Amino acid sequence: MDPRIEALQRRAAATPGLINLGGGLPAEVQFPKRALARAFLKALGRQGAPALQYGWAEGSLELRRWVAERLHARGASVAPDDIIITSGAQQAIALGLELVCRPGDLVGVDAATYPAALELIAERHLRAVPRWRDVGARYVMPALGNPSGRELSREDRRAVCEGKAAILEDDAYADLRFEGPAPRPLLADLRTRVLHVGTLSKTLCPGLRIGWLVVPPRLRARALRLKASQDLQASSLAQSVACEYLLGGEDFEARLVRLRRFYRARAHKLLRVLRTHLPDWSFSEPEGGFAVWAHPPSSSGNIPDEVHFLTAALAEGVSFDPGSSFRPDRAATPLALRLCFSAAPSASFEEGAVRLARAWRRVNGRRRRDEGRRRRPRSSAERAAA
Amino acid sequence: MDPRIEALQRRAAATPGLINLGGGLPAEVQFPKRALARAFLKALGRQGAPALQYGWAEGSLELRRWVAERLHARGASVAPDDIIITSGAQQAIALGLELVCRPGDLVGVDAATYPAALELIAERHLRAVPRWRDVGARYVMPALGNPSGRELSREDRRAVCEGKAAILEDDAYADLRFEGPAPRPLLADLRTRVLHVGTLSKTLCPGLRIGWLVVPPRLRARALRLKASQDLQASSLAQSVACEYLLGGEDFEARLVRLRRFYRARAHKLLRVLRTHLPDWSFSEPEGGFAVWAHPPSSSGNIPDEVHFLTAALAEGVSFDPGSSFRPDRAATPLALRLCFSAAPSASFEEGAVRLARAWRRVNGRRRRDEGRRRRPRSSAERAAA
Repeated sequence: MDPRIEALQRRAAATPGLINLGGGLPAEVQFPKRALARAFLKALGRQGAPALQYGWAEGSLELRRWVAERLHARGASVAPDDIIITSGAQQAIALGLELVCRPGDLVGVDAATYPAALELIAERHLRAVPRWRDVGARYVMPALGNPSGRELSREDRRAVCEGKAAILEDDAYADLRFEGPAPRPLLADLRTRVLHVGTLSKTLCPGLRIGWLVVPPRLRARALRLKASQDLQASSLAQSVACEYLLGGEDFEARLVRLRRFYRARAHKLLRVLRTHLPDWSFSEPEGGFAVWAHPPSSSGNIPDEVHFLTAALAEGVSFDPGSSFRPDRAATPLALRLCFSAAPSASFEEGAVRLARAWRRVNGRRRRDEGRRRRPRSSAERAAA
Repeated sequence: MDPRIEALQRRAAATPGLINLGGGLPAEVQFPKRALARAFLKALGRQGAPALQYGWAEGSLELRRWVAERLHARGASVAPDDIIITSGAQQAIALGLELVCRPGDLVGVDAATYPAALELIAERHLRAVPRWRDVGARYVMPALGNPSGRELSREDRRAVCEGKAAILEDDAYADLRFEGPAPRPLLADLRTRVLHVGTLSKTLCPGLRIGWLVVPPRLRARALRLKASQDLQASSLAQSVACEYLLGGEDFEARLVRLRRFYRARAHKLLRVLRTHLPDWSFSEPEGGFAVWAHPPSSSGNIPDEVHFLTAALAEGVSFDPGSSFRPDRAATPLALRLCFSAAPSASFEEGAVRLARAWRRVNGRRRRDEGRRRRPRSSAERAAA
């Protein structure tokens, strides 16, 4: 990521009163604190205190059974032994890429996709390209894209599945589609070349850092060795708390129904105020997830610089995720923004949109003035100084 | 690791009644369950629930300050910004190796050292060699070696510090030297080329998966990018629980004094019973840590196979860590065992030693019979059948 953008985002996160529409964080109000506290106390009481002790690299059998059952219900017949509990989905993606790619490989991705996957691809000396054909592997979020908030189109889905390239299926938001349960994963139909990535970060809480990787049986032994060499195992504490929570009588499916309703209402509200205050922008119509993907009008042909726009937005007291982070070539044009409805209080959305519109007018005004200045015939003094 | 050994160790861990002198686990009775439960409840109560939310890649500032202060007290002037909280010490080692090595590099290690570091070195396409000179980097446990249980000799310390190679200093057991506080780390004198690795796994509990990596300032930005690309951040939950525990009035130094006394008493007891029941074996005299490094007599010149000995031990109801896992070339000879006094109940030590001695006699008896058989002149029937 552009270090200037990271610096601005860190500043945003530390500024009181700022309305942060960036970050992609889940809503704190939805963290089931009491139930997690009960789960923790139960986990500590277990004979042998497995929550505090070392465990095996593949992770908790109970948790892997739970994942296998939920995938089974979606059409994918997966055994607990095909699953490795990881330190968040990010590690599952990292292990997956290492299992199927060699340095220099091309990795096909969406035209806009998850920034941390792009960072990882670059760190691993791979190259992300915005196409599905003629690549060594593919990284894709079929159930629900980030930042698009949309299911993969039928045409793209067909293209992703074509040929023999390994597919890294990132299922992070599958359970948070507004209109209902998670769809059939690619894993269900392409068991031998799909590596499937899941997580509790969006549906329970990210602080646990619990994700999982489903691998084809031929890759299992190597995946386990890699996992063990990277960090031995996912946190026993987090796994135990998650297990006690998920298997201890909490109704997770009912929770998902509540979460979908909650985030859908927020998405609608954010879209409404954005359309009111930025009427000439275009916005993705999210089908789920945490964010709206927004494009300011590009009709003028002269787009304000992304970093300047973010700086102006921070000065107005609002923040967003700049589009360049989501693009495989890090292009800042056409100018785009991810605007998250997930974490900021929904009561702040209108004011957030007002501030964003003000920042937009400011950079546009300055841009128009700059253009005007450039077009204006130079004075004799200016001509002398040049 | 030899997959047969892993299979045997998994079987051992699942066998009720077996006395497990392998594994290197800390004592469950020393986990401060109540204090951790209090810490968890306090962490959940914090404004914004940082324990459940995403955090930055470098980890909790409070925790990094705590680490910096403790290192400072040992002579190393380190700022919180030089520290990255990792998903256990294993990840710190993994990041450290990636920062200073290229595929194919030689990594100097002790003649016997931490198995998971050796596995990692092999996975990263590096080569571990048992020497300190003419290597690209060095991995070493100066304060207290594993499996030796001894401080690095003055001579080895000098050799490790010679030249310009980067040094990965694994400080995992430094706080658990029986005779007192952790010594001055290499980091204190070689700030620009020591990457220092610490952990809470031995002194608090491993289930949190909280470790840290101290990097020279020039490597910080890359280290952070690597950490973020691997798994975004260490578990917020584990970091928050650790913070509340360490900074919330629990006396950690007093805990260390108790732990040192506890493990020293266990070490002495295990050594005593081992010497009684295996009088011709030799044992390291541990200065701290969790284990004794044991060598059966090699006088006969004909050493029983490590896997057969472990199989025989399991049949007798006792387990150990075979020496080959600790050696850079995985050599099973000279036969050696790591015997841990840390986790098995100390009341079981005597019976464990008796069983081990029985297993030893069994494989030796068989070996002598085998030798006898080989030496015995063949019968005419045998000659005919050959």
